[in-house]
Amino acid sequence: MEKTRQWSISGLGPQDLRIREAIVSAPGVDEILVRTEAASLNYRDKLVMETGMGLPLAFPFVPVSDMAGIVEEVGVSVTRFRPGDRVISTFMPGRLDGKGIGDARNPPYRTLGGFHPGVLSELVTFPADWFVAAPKTLDAAGGSTLPCAGLTAWMALVESGHLKAGDKVLIQGTGGVALFAVQIARAHGADIYVTSSSEEKLQRVRELGAEHLLPRKGWADRLLELTDGYGADHVLDIAGGSGFAEALKAVAVGGRVSLIGVFDGLELAGSAPDLLLKAPVVQGVSVGHRRALEDLVRAVDTIGLKPVIDKRYQFEEAGEAFAHLDRGPFGKIVIEF
Amino acid sequence: MEKTRQWSISGLGPQDLRIREAIVSAPGVDEILVRTEAASLNYRDKLVMETGMGLPLAFPFVPVSDMAGIVEEVGVSVTRFRPGDRVISTFMPGRLDGKGIGDARNPPYRTLGGFHPGVLSELVTFPADWFVAAPKTLDAAGGSTLPCAGLTAWMALVESGHLKAGDKVLIQGTGGVALFAVQIARAHGADIYVTSSSEEKLQRVRELGAEHLLPRKGWADRLLELTDGYGADHVLDIAGGSGFAEALKAVAVGGRVSLIGVFDGLELAGSAPDLLLKAPVVQGVSVGHRRALEDLVRAVDTIGLKPVIDKRYQFEEAGEAFAHLDRGPFGKIVIEF
Amino acid sequence: MEKTRQWSISGLGPQDLRIREAIVSAPGVDEILVRTEAASLNYRDKLVMETGMGLPLAFPFVPVSDMAGIVEEVGVSVTRFRPGDRVISTFMPGRLDGKGIGDARNPPYRTLGGFHPGVLSELVTFPADWFVAAPKTLDAAGGSTLPCAGLTAWMALVESGHLKAGDKVLIQGTGGVALFAVQIARAHGADIYVTSSSEEKLQRVRELGAEHLLPRKGWADRLLELTDGYGADHVLDIAGGSGFAEALKAVAVGGRVSLIGVFDGLELAGSAPDLLLKAPVVQGVSVGHRRALEDLVRAVDTIGLKPVIDKRYQFEEAGEAFAHLDRGPFGKIVIEF
Amino acid sequence: MEKTRQWSISGLGPQDLRIREAIVSAPGVDEILVRTEAASLNYRDKLVMETGMGLPLAFPFVPVSDMAGIVEEVGVSVTRFRPGDRVISTFMPGRLDGKGIGDARNPPYRTLGGFHPGVLSELVTFPADWFVAAPKTLDAAGGSTLPCAGLTAWMALVESGHLKAGDKVLIQGTGGVALFAVQIARAHGADIYVTSSSEEKLQRVRELGAEHLLPRKGWADRLLELTDGYGADHVLDIAGGSGFAEALKAVAVGGRVSLIGVFDGLELAGSAPDLLLKAPVVQGVSVGHRRALEDLVRAVDTIGLKPVIDKRYQFEEAGEAFAHLDRGPFGKIVIEF
Repeated sequence: MEKTRQWSISGLGPQDLRIREAIVSAPGVDEILVRTEAASLNYRDKLVMETGMGLPLAFPFVPVSDMAGIVEEVGVSVTRFRPGDRVISTFMPGRLDGKGIGDARNPPYRTLGGFHPGVLSELVTFPADWFVAAPKTLDAAGGSTLPCAGLTAWMALVESGHLKAGDKVLIQGTGGVALFAVQIARAHGADIYVTSSSEEKLQRVRELGAEHLLPRKGWADRLLELTDGYGADHVLDIAGGSGFAEALKAVAVGGRVSLIGVFDGLELAGSAPDLLLKAPVVQGVSVGHRRALEDLVRAVDTIGLKPVIDKRYQFEEAGEAFAHLDRGPFGKIVIEF
Repeated sequence: MEKTRQWSISGLGPQDLRIREAIVSAPGVDEILVRTEAASLNYRDKLVMETGMGLPLAFPFVPVSDMAGIVEEVGVSVTRFRPGDRVISTFMPGRLDGKGIGDARNPPYRTLGGFHPGVLSELVTFPADWFVAAPKTLDAAGGSTLPCAGLTAWMALVESGHLKAGDKVLIQGTGGVALFAVQIARAHGADIYVTSSSEEKLQRVRELGAEHLLPRKGWADRLLELTDGYGADHVLDIAGGSGFAEALKAVAVGGRVSLIGVFDGLELAGSAPDLLLKAPVVQGVSVGHRRALEDLVRAVDTIGLKPVIDKRYQFEEAGEAFAHLDRGPFGKIVIEF
Repeated sequence: MEKTRQWSISGLGPQDLRIREAIVSAPGVDEILVRTEAASLNYRDKLVMETGMGLPLAFPFVPVSDMAGIVEEVGVSVTRFRPGDRVISTFMPGRLDGKGIGDARNPPYRTLGGFHPGVLSELVTFPADWFVAAPKTLDAAGGSTLPCAGLTAWMALVESGHLKAGDKVLIQGTGGVALFAVQIARAHGADIYVTSSSEEKLQRVRELGAEHLLPRKGWADRLLELTDGYGADHVLDIAGGSGFAEALKAVAVGGRVSLIGVFDGLELAGSAPDLLLKAPVVQGVSVGHRRALEDLVRAVDTIGLKPVIDKRYQFEEAGEAFAHLDRGPFGKIVIEF
Repeated sequence: MEKTRQWSISGLGPQDLRIREAIVSAPGVDEILVRTEAASLNYRDKLVMETGMGLPLAFPFVPVSDMAGIVEEVGVSVTRFRPGDRVISTFMPGRLDGKGIGDARNPPYRTLGGFHPGVLSELVTFPADWFVAAPKTLDAAGGSTLPCAGLTAWMALVESGHLKAGDKVLIQGTGGVALFAVQIARAHGADIYVTSSSEEKLQRVRELGAEHLLPRKGWADRLLELTDGYGADHVLDIAGGSGFAEALKAVAVGGRVSLIGVFDGLELAGSAPDLLLKAPVVQGVSVGHRRALEDLVRAVDTIGLKPVIDKRYQFEEAGEAFAHLDRGPFGKIVIEF
């Protein structure tokens, strides 16, 4: 048992977020104690704090799902890690490989900083299974961006999508997942199309390897023009809602639509003939499993991918960091411990 | 060149359907001349005659896509068939295997009895590539039901869906594709759930191997009850429209929704969280390719599958046959020549 | 801690196998204590006892990998099982889903009754993760046959092979895996070919659904004759060694050879042109993962598959049971507790 | 009908290869007449001329399978091409997509410059289906290298292998397929290992993106050392024979061995335990289908891949070009017309 400082809320609503002292238990037989070096924020972390998202949170609740740290102690039966190892967390503990957990009535959503406690804590004790080795070529801030945003892009394009050189990839927006998608698509030789309402962000995403820049409104028609009617082999749809119809319109024959967000709403709308005649695969992507995160780490180290970090905050600045998240950063917001 | 009798329309609208004499050209180098023995009706055949479905029809237009017949003559470069061979047609000529034809702007829909002329004709001359060998264990009427209805069910469940024993399969309704789906699922050892508003049809589908019978309304909740929350590994959605939401609700974690019809409308509506959290594959099924039809033929001969035929009509009774189609048959309507 | 009776060896060699008393530890936080009801023998169990197979065995060593039993106690963090639940073991503990464990230098072979202790013990305490729910439609003896022999056939044909109705399946011999393969292939509507040197066994396998019976020698030529040159979509090769050449010769274009045994030797020999021109997938099958075992259990319950059990022995008769294994049973040898 | 000059042999054996005049037929309804601009040599072209490889050649026989040219005339039913279009040939005419052609008794090997006549001819008339659009970013010489060598590497790594960033790829030697494999693997972010007995060639392959250079003998052990026992996710085996054992030894758990050559002999030899315990997929690669060639062309244009051409010869220098092939070039030998 050790004392730690951690950000927590005593009830729903962000106004209550502050640093509290807490006790971290010593690692059980299959657990490890990790000293957090960096945590990366996702918009979902705010939703959990503000609404609970229907999850059975225990208060005081520590938010945030993604971290990188150093192993301090390991339980007696732990063989995957030793003290001193650099690790990153997995978003959905226990999902190791293959098929998702849960069933149709209780679909899987038991994440860190959600169902389970989060990582905005100087020390955490969790099962060793909940971590993977950190990338060798990134510092802790970079590594902390992979478990949710990085892995979502990787699952959509690579693990499920088998992206290959020459594929046309349409990426909506310039959010955290979108920027990873651009970098991953670039590393696989894809032909990249990005939509945004911000000319400035489009210029910045061009530097990451996106050749074709499209407006946020009416992008599907523009894509069909640019590709001479071919469409996109992969569409990363962060819109959902009625924007889903644009994705179905833009996808190529036999292509793939990965739904990863719902910025346009929770009620999908789209054209059945697009789905029938082009027979694309449409799949929701809810982050992914640990084996794919290990693959991503390996890819990051091989290709030298550097996650885009908009700003790094100190541990004490978590409030400012969350406020920045609201303003639509270009890249990830990271808190360094 | 030979004379033939054929049902045709001289303009859109079914009232004009009647038997006309026509000339059938001798087979070109890669073509075959086939004597039709049976043709099987699909609801789509009516839609084409009544609305044209936006297709560039040449009049007089011969309707109907699916047939079985006997090869009478072959072109000089034809090696796949000889005179006397029993053949069935393919729904989408030229789609031999693998990826679909066309692009996002012009998706593939060049079918027999649609873009191309149909088969309600005593003789037809088409490229040899447009046919496959008929099943040995079915008569012409049975064989004629495979190219559209049979292949759609096979593509959804087997070619794309990799159905396996123990999988839970939810099939909406008791239409032509649905009954094939029940028989194919049964032959693969699946656990079968069928919805219908007709108690009588449910009893008949039970005899085909469907163990679980569900009401047409609220079937998703009932399915979740029956499966203790698990859901269905495969959902055959013939509803589309707002009924699509039921399919997304009912599908299991990592399962599959195959959209094959739009009885509830062309505008899909459904819940994004169902798609995100359960990560099912959703795919439209627009019949399939020739190699899969050959696989289906082989399966039919191996397992002794007998397509459900509601009624057989004579060539002269095509009008009555189409009228029957409107009344919602239990099984296929076939015209024997 | 409880006392138990168990069969064990104090050193390599079967002559030492006898019943000893031992202490079974109380379940740790993530463990369960299971009362064994039945154990099923595999030839590999003998090899381990006689040679050690290079594994670091701890003596006294309890042999045998496959069992069915009833949960007596569960650790505090166990949620998948409760006392009274009927369970079966998994062959390779910790392989839950997806990719195999280990690396090229140390390939995965950490099985029960091998690297780990075995199950020929009235009581065992293991992590809850090492078990799955037993099939509802089988008694303990039937359930105990699934973890190794049943799952190997299922992995080869279904999980990796996507077997479908109409596929031609060639199964070598009538051993434990082979008989499961016949039953599983039958349940998926396959066209089944079995080889054996025993006319009597061929007649018995015919009753399980194998239509085509082939001699043990020269079976590839006979298969090509029977299939008019087509070959087999799936070959289950238990021979290895120079017999592997027969499998490569017999496999269809684009088919699959699953290597599951090495009765003809450890040094594979075969023709490169067969592999190049027909482009089959060749894959070794080393049992499988827990999720596939759960799929198999579900299939068994859905299709009513009854494993073939040659003879059931009492707990005290383990010696006779192993002796029977040497004589080449038709079906599994099970020890009931 | 037009006159053309072409290299041909009047019987087996290369000594007879010389330029002859011939008549090229006007295109039939589905054919095109193409003016050859460049042809690329493969070692197989020599084997066909010297041994016939068991193929039913018609003499005078025009050798060579791979070409790029310009469409001069098109048959009346040809819609895919117009006069003036730049095209490249497909290696195995008629294999459009999906499953291979032929059966186990007569596996597919009906290639250009083999079963069919070859392309070392100023004009050729073939079905339009036998061609695809040439890459826009390559000249004719570059385009002519894709149909056999380029597509073989693409099929092994991408179409069948789903290569992804971070994968470890072992490529044997520095032949034509191997160099394409290095470039394709590089474009997908892979970690590349190449074997060769020539230090000079290793240095040149390093410039193409191969980071790890291995000796020709004992490369598997060296690879395991370099990867800390992990092995290679993809092995491109050009050895066959007893060298196949090295590939099985080096492949990672769940990895893939693509057999693409038989430089060590036609009789494969390897260790069954490697295949059983690591469960890799082993697959022969015999070039590929037209759809994959179209994908490769798109990739080439997207990533700017420039095939390695060792030397370009004039049409009249075909003899010197074939002689160069014997000396082991670094890259392709191309004949420009």
